[in-house]
Amino acid sequence: MKADRKAVERLIKTARGQLDGILKMIEEDRYCIDISNQISAAEQVLKKANREVLKAHMGSCVAEAIQQNGGEEKLNELFTTLDKLLK
Amino acid sequence: MKADRKAVERLIKTARGQLDGILKMIEEDRYCIDISNQISAAEQVLKKANREVLKAHMGSCVAEAIQQNGGEEKLNELFTTLDKLLK
Amino acid sequence: MKADRKAVERLIKTARGQLDGILKMIEEDRYCIDISNQISAAEQVLKKANREVLKAHMGSCVAEAIQQNGGEEKLNELFTTLDKLLK
Amino acid sequence: MKADRKAVERLIKTARGQLDGILKMIEEDRYCIDISNQISAAEQVLKKANREVLKAHMGSCVAEAIQQNGGEEKLNELFTTLDKLLK
Repeated sequence: MKADRKAVERLIKTARGQLDGILKMIEEDRYCIDISNQISAAEQVLKKANREVLKAHMGSCVAEAIQQNGGEEKLNELFTTLDKLLK
Repeated sequence: MKADRKAVERLIKTARGQLDGILKMIEEDRYCIDISNQISAAEQVLKKANREVLKAHMGSCVAEAIQQNGGEEKLNELFTTLDKLLK
Repeated sequence: MKADRKAVERLIKTARGQLDGILKMIEEDRYCIDISNQISAAEQVLKKANREVLKAHMGSCVAEAIQQNGGEEKLNELFTTLDKLLK
Repeated sequence: MKADRKAVERLIKTARGQLDGILKMIEEDRYCIDISNQISAAEQVLKKANREVLKAHMGSCVAEAIQQNGGEEKLNELFTTLDKLLK
């Protein structure tokens, strides 16, 4: 992976901590909307992690492939991923 | 929380397992696109958990409030959450 | 439709005006990112219109059905729509 | 714009036709859920148009900039757009 490894790790660990918190909230039978808000917060952290991974990928792997051989294969692979995320 | 507690717990634990897998992938310096796809998969699981929580909330807390007092307060609270999620 | 008809009409007409602007930008061969940003702006307006329609629906049709007969059918119909939008 | 101009135009015109249909549905006081579904359909068409514009941009403007000067500026501009769309 080309993204800042420490930064992405930190985000994934943050989300994992949020999920542990959510499991505790479920066990304590907390209010639905509070649980929903915490799940949304964890989603936001994962989205940020995903953006970091994809941007670093474009700025390194994809850019290098473009410089070496036009990058058609890497671009198509990236487009497949973006097509799903931008649905 | 009014949603099927076991089902939501299971989804959150699935997502937590996926995050553990992602941390391992980062450590093993796996390919960016594979990591991105795994992050997206975890996001999908959290979204499903969130939908379950919110639908159960509407079908119980919100519905009860509507029957008891028109539910204005519960509806407004729900709308605030939906406004954020449907952005 | 139960939403403020004038408000929703206004949003849809705003989006339609944006689409006319985008067609003109395409004809003038404008820069990709500018066109993308305008398409995103139109999407945001439609999302706002959709939120208004759905919130008014919940606060009227769904709430009335809940008061009259528990609203199971209306809730299921709403959940089908929300399941798609919250994907 | 670098995307297939005819294809993007066709999508934008499709969405515009859908918006005209929605305005008619509002005037005829049609059912909320039907209107919501039509708004969602128009959003999907715009998202598809946006994906086409952005992918063509990456495969042409951004790729050329990467080959000519590393593309830092074009990549950052693209990242700003993707950051908003992947929120």
